[in-house]
Amino acid sequence: MKKKLTKREEDYSKWYNELVVKAGLAENSFVRGCMVIKPYGYAIWEKMQAQLDIMFKETGHQNAYFPLFVPKSLFEAEEKNAKGFAKECAIVTHYRLKSDPENSGKLIVDKSSKLEEELIVRPTSEAIIWSTYKKWIQSYRDLPILINQWANVVRWEMRPRLFLRTVEFLWQEGHTAHSTKDEAVDEAILMNDIYAEFAENFMGIPVIKGIKSESEKFAGAEETYCIEALMQDGKALQAGTSHFLGQNFAKAFDVKFTNKEGSLDFVWATSWGVSTRLMGALIMTHSDDNGLVLPPKLAPIQVVIIPIYKSDEEFNSISSVLEPILSKLKSKGISVLFDKRDTHKPGFKFNEHEMKGVPIRIAIGPKDLENSTLEIFRRDKMEKKTISIDDVFSKIDFLINDIQTNLFDKAKLFTNSNIREANTFDEFKSIIKNNGGFVSAHWDGTTETEEKIKRETKATIRCIPLNNSKEDGKCIFSNKSSNQRVLFAKAY
Amino acid sequence: MKKKLTKREEDYSKWYNELVVKAGLAENSFVRGCMVIKPYGYAIWEKMQAQLDIMFKETGHQNAYFPLFVPKSLFEAEEKNAKGFAKECAIVTHYRLKSDPENSGKLIVDKSSKLEEELIVRPTSEAIIWSTYKKWIQSYRDLPILINQWANVVRWEMRPRLFLRTVEFLWQEGHTAHSTKDEAVDEAILMNDIYAEFAENFMGIPVIKGIKSESEKFAGAEETYCIEALMQDGKALQAGTSHFLGQNFAKAFDVKFTNKEGSLDFVWATSWGVSTRLMGALIMTHSDDNGLVLPPKLAPIQVVIIPIYKSDEEFNSISSVLEPILSKLKSKGISVLFDKRDTHKPGFKFNEHEMKGVPIRIAIGPKDLENSTLEIFRRDKMEKKTISIDDVFSKIDFLINDIQTNLFDKAKLFTNSNIREANTFDEFKSIIKNNGGFVSAHWDGTTETEEKIKRETKATIRCIPLNNSKEDGKCIFSNKSSNQRVLFAKAY
Repeated sequence: MKKKLTKREEDYSKWYNELVVKAGLAENSFVRGCMVIKPYGYAIWEKMQAQLDIMFKETGHQNAYFPLFVPKSLFEAEEKNAKGFAKECAIVTHYRLKSDPENSGKLIVDKSSKLEEELIVRPTSEAIIWSTYKKWIQSYRDLPILINQWANVVRWEMRPRLFLRTVEFLWQEGHTAHSTKDEAVDEAILMNDIYAEFAENFMGIPVIKGIKSESEKFAGAEETYCIEALMQDGKALQAGTSHFLGQNFAKAFDVKFTNKEGSLDFVWATSWGVSTRLMGALIMTHSDDNGLVLPPKLAPIQVVIIPIYKSDEEFNSISSVLEPILSKLKSKGISVLFDKRDTHKPGFKFNEHEMKGVPIRIAIGPKDLENSTLEIFRRDKMEKKTISIDDVFSKIDFLINDIQTNLFDKAKLFTNSNIREANTFDEFKSIIKNNGGFVSAHWDGTTETEEKIKRETKATIRCIPLNNSKEDGKCIFSNKSSNQRVLFAKAY
Repeated sequence: MKKKLTKREEDYSKWYNELVVKAGLAENSFVRGCMVIKPYGYAIWEKMQAQLDIMFKETGHQNAYFPLFVPKSLFEAEEKNAKGFAKECAIVTHYRLKSDPENSGKLIVDKSSKLEEELIVRPTSEAIIWSTYKKWIQSYRDLPILINQWANVVRWEMRPRLFLRTVEFLWQEGHTAHSTKDEAVDEAILMNDIYAEFAENFMGIPVIKGIKSESEKFAGAEETYCIEALMQDGKALQAGTSHFLGQNFAKAFDVKFTNKEGSLDFVWATSWGVSTRLMGALIMTHSDDNGLVLPPKLAPIQVVIIPIYKSDEEFNSISSVLEPILSKLKSKGISVLFDKRDTHKPGFKFNEHEMKGVPIRIAIGPKDLENSTLEIFRRDKMEKKTISIDDVFSKIDFLINDIQTNLFDKAKLFTNSNIREANTFDEFKSIIKNNGGFVSAHWDGTTETEEKIKRETKATIRCIPLNNSKEDGKCIFSNKSSNQRVLFAKAY
């Protein structure tokens, strides 16, 4: 923990990159665009996974696993989807290496192992899953199918950034099959709601629920629902999407079912996903110039205890006072680390756990023992206080809830105060340039206008909010009539 | 559940393949050698993962995630390891598809997207991980590193079989780094012990702990520890391996550390893994001609309750009696399914849950209500009994333990009675041919003899048991002197 972080206002992007590495979350690997998720970063991801998995199962979903590879002929079956991903696919063409006759100890691709049909490393699994569902679905009795998969996917990103945009990333992808359109639409909305609930109640990230414009929606979807969050630099981040796929994949893979009336119909579909990108959102929403700030519900370590001592005797006295506290905290399900490393000084430990965003820090030394006190520190507000040892459990209970609430409230205030209305294109450009954040503006509904606004300002339509009130107005760009405002922003 | 399973004694291999599909565990996909793990099969795997993960964390390991791809230059760095996997590698050579000018709507590989260096889809992750550890390790203070990863890997198997040998499979791979040889050896032994404990206490599979002969050990290892189990057809199955890697990978990737005395030394390593292959072992150890048999500790559904009724009124009476039973079972952490589907008859449900190996089945009808009884059935022994409703909790508690124990005891008896000593090669061949199972025999310790025995009998050395007592004797094949017996068997 030698060097300080770059400050956010100096260079937000540099601050983020340094923070991810210094907090021990992830780092770049030797494979272009692929990251190594380090143990501390992975522990946060595991907490997110565990909670999402509970929420998926509570709503009737089951996990399963489908192949990593998609044969090219299946991949290209749904044309829009295929076109959307074709330019960023890792392609397996051979299955054997052999010794290089010209370079002892080196290997070369064995040309004789060329595959008859190339395999695409899945960028998403609709194709492989719907070709499988065809075998599983004959009648309405086989529906709905409510399946989720935790998996790695690969998209050949040209400008990778840790967590936010990586060539390989981890995610979950739900793929459901339904007998009616309404049921599929309801499912897509339900899962978007679950993402919103998870983002707000666990990650402490306020989100806006909406639908995507034509040009921003998922390749192959009829409608894409999304949750959008605002980062501290005023850029938006798409935190999760849920797609109503209509009958597009059922038609591409010929998946029909006999309905209750005995006639054949194509199956209705949804898919939905969140990824390790959420880690980027979590980091950028709460963290500060001292490092990571974590909501207690997702913190791998909720409380760290640092003993301050000079002699073995002092250490032993402190330890014996701490033992019952540690075991009671553990029994209450609070994850606590007693940092008794003798290789590092307290100051180093303070900085390290601040950088890693441990929500609560307790320090205790010989003077505290005399007074039956300890020092308790909350990471979110960087505030410390000396309290009586007797109050430690109630104080920790209070802080775990209060930090969680405070982080959400703070982020909510920030988001709310960064949604600005623009009624002319000049106003729009000025807000995007000077303030950032979301701009709420009228739009004529055409892809052409959206494209032109993007070219001129780099802002895109993040979503058409679901809770939008109708309002007559004129498109800020084309002056054509519009009946609702949509949210624009520059985005990750 | 129309057709019955092929019987084990008729065709064991066919029985296995049918069972995996009929019990809804997995099926072949459209990608050669890759399987789809269906929700019920995946739910068993999740239970296995959860328990192993607890055991890894209790012994100080943390999870992390490393890239799917290994650049060829890293892959080939440790020569033995590279040579061991070169012939079964999926190789990514391009990163973009484009429209086929000659075939509207079809895609072809864009030749201009050829990678400068090919990427190998990881068959195992030593190379990518040790190239990363080089960045993490400078001093003895950075050691040990105790990391595990849950991941998918790809090995281009020529004769794939569901769970047992698939091109893509799911596994965990531990990769640890240590400052001394002793510590690394202890780690390798510890993890093999954990695998044994998991296999025996959770999967109900008795195993023999041992070390591999030179020709069977992991490519790049100094020593491979393993657990070997015996399937019902008398073939052995390697259920887990733990490797002491010496300094081989540290040397290949130049990973040195400063020890306490201030001098530089290469780091010592282990790696260890179990995979979805364990699902094959679980199925083949316990199941019977009626379908899957599951140990209660790994059963996604431990108790299924089937109502038997003719009218809605009867159903309602049964339901109201069951409600408190269901909620009490759930509160005790027992996973219970009330199968109230009105689309299927009780007989169908009985067969289905037998096929799926649900350990305990309860059936309850109007007559039971009158008598305050219910019928309880244990899948392992196919025994049913009518008991008083008041006894249901104590009976279920008893059965959950008794079935778990019974399955292990039965398998243990089978394994023990199928370890036979051979003192001549004729005896050896006769046992392999007529009995199967393990043959305990003297061996001269050479790869040459092992190879010849394999060629003649298809039996290989499964392991040199760790608890072996020394015994002077003559190699059954070469007649050379030997000081211990090793275990041979035909194997999966």
